[in-house]
Amino acid sequence: MTQRIVAKYWMETGDDPMRAAETIAGEQSSGTFLKLAAETPELKERSGARVEALDILDVVDAPSLPGGMASKRYTRCLLTLSWPLENLGPCLPTLMATVAGNLFELRQVSGLRLLELQLPEAFAQAYPGPAFGMAGTRRLSGVQQGPLIGTIIKPSVGLNPQETAEQVKMLVDGGIDFIKDDELQANGPHCSFEERVTAVMRVVNDAEQRSGRKTMVAFNITGELDQMKHRHDWVLRHGGTCVMACLNSVGLVGMSALRRHSALPIHAHRAGWGFLSRSPALGWDFAAWQPFWRLAGVDHLHVNGLRNKFSDSDETVIAAARSVIRPLFKDQAMAAVPVFSSAQTGLQAHDTFKALGNADLICTAGGGIFGHPQGVSAGVTALREAWDAAQAGIDLRTYAATRPALQSALGFW
Amino acid sequence: MTQRIVAKYWMETGDDPMRAAETIAGEQSSGTFLKLAAETPELKERSGARVEALDILDVVDAPSLPGGMASKRYTRCLLTLSWPLENLGPCLPTLMATVAGNLFELRQVSGLRLLELQLPEAFAQAYPGPAFGMAGTRRLSGVQQGPLIGTIIKPSVGLNPQETAEQVKMLVDGGIDFIKDDELQANGPHCSFEERVTAVMRVVNDAEQRSGRKTMVAFNITGELDQMKHRHDWVLRHGGTCVMACLNSVGLVGMSALRRHSALPIHAHRAGWGFLSRSPALGWDFAAWQPFWRLAGVDHLHVNGLRNKFSDSDETVIAAARSVIRPLFKDQAMAAVPVFSSAQTGLQAHDTFKALGNADLICTAGGGIFGHPQGVSAGVTALREAWDAAQAGIDLRTYAATRPALQSALGFW
Repeated sequence: MTQRIVAKYWMETGDDPMRAAETIAGEQSSGTFLKLAAETPELKERSGARVEALDILDVVDAPSLPGGMASKRYTRCLLTLSWPLENLGPCLPTLMATVAGNLFELRQVSGLRLLELQLPEAFAQAYPGPAFGMAGTRRLSGVQQGPLIGTIIKPSVGLNPQETAEQVKMLVDGGIDFIKDDELQANGPHCSFEERVTAVMRVVNDAEQRSGRKTMVAFNITGELDQMKHRHDWVLRHGGTCVMACLNSVGLVGMSALRRHSALPIHAHRAGWGFLSRSPALGWDFAAWQPFWRLAGVDHLHVNGLRNKFSDSDETVIAAARSVIRPLFKDQAMAAVPVFSSAQTGLQAHDTFKALGNADLICTAGGGIFGHPQGVSAGVTALREAWDAAQAGIDLRTYAATRPALQSALGFW
Repeated sequence: MTQRIVAKYWMETGDDPMRAAETIAGEQSSGTFLKLAAETPELKERSGARVEALDILDVVDAPSLPGGMASKRYTRCLLTLSWPLENLGPCLPTLMATVAGNLFELRQVSGLRLLELQLPEAFAQAYPGPAFGMAGTRRLSGVQQGPLIGTIIKPSVGLNPQETAEQVKMLVDGGIDFIKDDELQANGPHCSFEERVTAVMRVVNDAEQRSGRKTMVAFNITGELDQMKHRHDWVLRHGGTCVMACLNSVGLVGMSALRRHSALPIHAHRAGWGFLSRSPALGWDFAAWQPFWRLAGVDHLHVNGLRNKFSDSDETVIAAARSVIRPLFKDQAMAAVPVFSSAQTGLQAHDTFKALGNADLICTAGGGIFGHPQGVSAGVTALREAWDAAQAGIDLRTYAATRPALQSALGFW
């Protein structure tokens, strides 16, 4: 039985929808500019992409995107295409060129968005998936249940290594589980990576001596491959338990190479996700984008947060979070840990928990922790208590009645 | 004197434009969620991004993209921001997270597109740029002047190595200068990379024995880093003179690593460019995207072609082509070779030459060569003659009067 790659698109076309679908299928498989002798029916049967389904949604009178063919009606539909695995083999970079290559700019479409992707098991054999996931993250951070309560170093840039370590000390003393660098801060001249890691890990290791628990710090190692390997090794040598990299900056091949080298969980930042997704008529749904990175082996994936400061709706956020924990293959889930961030406080805990069905996640808050009138420690406690309440199914205000940190937090969240 | 990174955007905002500009600047530099003690005026002065210019274009009453703040008026403007190089150092991946990171999804914008990028000289010291460019491409291909006349192997997928080699033989015998694999074909089970290269290079090397000139074949080595290195070495060992990789599939870090390994020109395919650019209110202009890849070291960059089958306007194509030859730095041009493709025939030669000002380019045609009634050789000759006419400033029909291949081609182009 031939294994096939299946991709689902939202398409808008000024052409006959089936003809547009066939054009995409041809363009992305055995199509030719002219009928060539070599393009036999057997070849087309063996290698052609196939239109599996085409469901008309509605018809509009103006195109969503410019540059397409002129028409009086633009039909919107859901299109499912499939490709034989044999066209490319289980290769993620060529998969990307196949399902998301030269098709968005076709004149036949005035809108095209990749919604979903289903891959044959061969990809599970060819790629490692996350090495740590939630279980490994819990083991390394000592957080046995509930979310890892986290935050980010701010200001994003401008602190030197010593100032960074001082912020980390305040956070670690406050009982935080997880800290991440900003995506803008990797190895700036004012804040050398090595010095920052050395200074920060001194604080983290000292605290571990006292508390027996090590705060997980995701150091941003984003850079060229040799630099990332060197920085990873530096983090490992200084007792660190996580590295962070920006997916759109590093790219698929770099992330795969990092995964093969890494002995630590990889915290994946999606900076730039907006340019791939903000137009509803173009680009990527997160559900179709994230399998590439999970297969390549990232452990933590950013999904934004409910009621965030960005343009993602709550529905989009939850769909993204669910997508990263949905099993990729029958026997290999390759689940990543969803990372919730952006304007997060304890007020989103109940809704997030309800929508996700579990608390296997990282929740990072900035103002939601730092803004606490009794300080960072109370801020961390309050956020954790909000999640405890959510998991226990107890109303936030009821739970807060006997918990001063949470009670006080409700005033400023 | 502080060296600064300068980026120019098209922005649409429902907010006060200067406030939106300051929000982006803050978000992408020293901003914090709350006013922190560490965010001193000195730190902001040293590390903050700066609004260099803000020019209002017009005001519209509906947002281009959804998810932004509600407003009665959306102001469109040109925004120039700058960052101190010291925030990140000359690091391409972090540069991408800085100029094209978490800003497209800000609620304050209902449209954001990166138009231009200017980088400090430090990037020229940190990155190699193209190793071959046009001079190296001419040397290896033996094409002393005018464009390299090229084509692509079709069907895109489905041919086995022997069938591919047969197509290549027909093309090489026809006098073609340049052949490329399709971006969908790297190492499929039906067409193993090694066997394909071996079979194709046997044909190419045999022809070189007779003609003294070696057709340049861009073999698609796209894959994981180890695979790409192995495939590059395989091409080199078999006498090949070019490798091809898909930029969006491989990513920045992978391309940099390939460049450091490569002894051959890198032919860069931009498959997927549409998802980065098709919405005029979002994403990237090619002018801002291409410097990343030139710095990383690619030699050939696809720019589409005049009157192409995709949605790019002629103006967009020419702007893209001009951008890849415009010097990146005062003392280091790092020019790439523009590759024109998609529905190209000799009919676009004059306009392309006129718009670009030179013929230092690769022109690939499919139907424009294969469709010639006298066969591939006449197709190649006709396309070359059209470019000769363009360079000589002679009208195409006049030039064709004494040239049967060109004369005949005018009938089907």
